Amino acid sequence: MTTRLAHANIAAPDAAALAEKFHRLLGLEVAAETVVAEQGVRVLLLAAGEGRVEITEPLGPETPVGRFLAKRGPGLHHLAFGVPDIDAALARLRAAGARLIDAVPRVGAEGHRIAFVHPETFGGVLVELVEEEDHGARGDLPPAR
Amino acid sequence: MTTRLAHANIAAPDAAALAEKFHRLLGLEVAAETVVAEQGVRVLLLAAGEGRVEITEPLGPETPVGRFLAKRGPGLHHLAFGVPDIDAALARLRAAGARLIDAVPRVGAEGHRIAFVHPETFGGVLVELVEEEDHGARGDLPPAR
Repeated sequence: MTTRLAHANIAAPDAAALAEKFHRLLGLEVAAETVVAEQGVRVLLLAAGEGRVEITEPLGPETPVGRFLAKRGPGLHHLAFGVPDIDAALARLRAAGARLIDAVPRVGAEGHRIAFVHPETFGGVLVELVEEEDHGARGDLPPAR
Repeated sequence: MTTRLAHANIAAPDAAALAEKFHRLLGLEVAAETVVAEQGVRVLLLAAGEGRVEITEPLGPETPVGRFLAKRGPGLHHLAFGVPDIDAALARLRAAGARLIDAVPRVGAEGHRIAFVHPETFGGVLVELVEEEDHGARGDLPPAR
């Protein structure tokens, strides 16, 4: 099983403003922007070498990210790991008794199959699994992931 | 200026126990282990493809990470970005009025020159800059960074 750090996610009240800061101060470029209406979020993806920084802005206060901001304030929200087979990864977690938020994968912002694992499983860190079809071909990763 | 996501850091009361979970459930391997006595931390670095997950365990409650755990609980602590020239990166931040924790670089756990930037600069995210000499030679990165 090979697993890679796909992105680190930040919750922010204004994703574009934070992306502009990362660009101006650290040179990170916006690689993709998406609105996921059913999750109530706008998502900006910044390229940072082989890794990515994802910034999530809630579309309203009564969304999961809106409630996170109200409770914890802006900052780090979750880590995403790319895996070659998300069904196998979820089965391994389930067999170990891990607490899953998504028992079955759903489709994420960029069309990948994703699933979230509860923070109690990984020391208080909310973990997202992302199925990456070209996983392992590090020289051939598309620009946005 | 090229900047890459070098690692995501997690503060944990027991780094070895959390590393074992990441290994058993996601297949991540420990790439390096260091004790930085002057910072009061034990540091475990997990390989996750080209990225790294760093787990920091405080050596006592009266350390920066010990106080973080008492205040916020275990979980995500900071993001580290690799830069080719940390003096140039700090000068750019200083010129933009960013609030720096380290005005001049110091030597981090693995012998790299590092500097921390206050969370107010990047939307509540504590950011570490790491000078990477072989930055950009992605095929030649050493295993531990």
